[in-house]
Amino acid sequence: MAGAEIERLIQLLARLPGLGPRSARRAALHLLNKRDALLQPLALALRDVADKVQTCARCGNLDSHNPCAICSDTRRDDALLCVVESVADLWALERSGVFRGRYHVLGGTLSALDGRGPADLNVDGLLARVGDGSRVREVIIATNATVEGQTTAHYLTDRLLPAGVSVTRLAHGVPVGGELDYLDDGTLGAALKARRPF
Amino acid sequence: MAGAEIERLIQLLARLPGLGPRSARRAALHLLNKRDALLQPLALALRDVADKVQTCARCGNLDSHNPCAICSDTRRDDALLCVVESVADLWALERSGVFRGRYHVLGGTLSALDGRGPADLNVDGLLARVGDGSRVREVIIATNATVEGQTTAHYLTDRLLPAGVSVTRLAHGVPVGGELDYLDDGTLGAALKARRPF
Repeated sequence: MAGAEIERLIQLLARLPGLGPRSARRAALHLLNKRDALLQPLALALRDVADKVQTCARCGNLDSHNPCAICSDTRRDDALLCVVESVADLWALERSGVFRGRYHVLGGTLSALDGRGPADLNVDGLLARVGDGSRVREVIIATNATVEGQTTAHYLTDRLLPAGVSVTRLAHGVPVGGELDYLDDGTLGAALKARRPF
Repeated sequence: MAGAEIERLIQLLARLPGLGPRSARRAALHLLNKRDALLQPLALALRDVADKVQTCARCGNLDSHNPCAICSDTRRDDALLCVVESVADLWALERSGVFRGRYHVLGGTLSALDGRGPADLNVDGLLARVGDGSRVREVIIATNATVEGQTTAHYLTDRLLPAGVSVTRLAHGVPVGGELDYLDDGTLGAALKARRPF
């Protein structure tokens, strides 16, 4: 029905997370209806990103500069290093705007099931960054609160403590705005155990 | 946080139907994680579509050929002309595979509220196609079953009947696989009124 070029575009769009075959078709038509305002700019933006964006050799963030803008920012605190699983997690923390230290992207978690060991993650890079002569005082392990994330956190703690840095992790508890009735037992238990004076 | 190039890509992706700011960010990361398999091909496909796909001068379909593949297909029946609001509707009918005539894309509906009159739709093109010496015997008006779609259908019928063609429209009724309990009264009423012998 539609030309081969359009079908190819629909197929590729359908592989984006959040778009299925049907919404990909809608998206392709939307792009064709907005050639100058959306199709051309999107093609350019993709080419730009493909040409310029690279993985920061220091922290693993994605940026058009290497080292990335966060690693190059002299106003950030070298003493604090936050370890995250993925670039998405790094961006989430940055959006919150509460952390002014540096990051380290692991690139995943340990997983016996999927056969991912320490060699598959950027663990050596992390140990090198907190090694002798480094200014890192505290490593905040911000892996996800999943079984694999927590396993990875324990493994990293064991590797980091001999380096003489203090190792911390994010607090568990009730999400801000969360209702107790909708929380799982694990979160409620953790929140109760970690209760603090008013 | 992310480079300007990535932010620009996220902003453009977020303007696609079905993607919001959050899923656009996920899509951008997905693209960056699959540079060779997805990012580069998508950039190429968009460029290809932008360069090659055009609106068929005869029917209004989008295709890399002009006239489009449907208008050029000699096995199709010139006597049947199906009028649709949009290219999306044309594609939907083509996917069903039940229609072997030609199409005509109006490019919208009449709408007093939005100030769209006959001059904003491809009505003159339609009348020219069913005019003297044309092989069109029947025009099937397949506008949507909305108020605006039906208004447009009535308007087109008034304009087409003097040309001596027969004008038909899609049947209303229970969708195949549909449950009566979930249907609105209008559809049920139409289905009952148009009941047919077993």
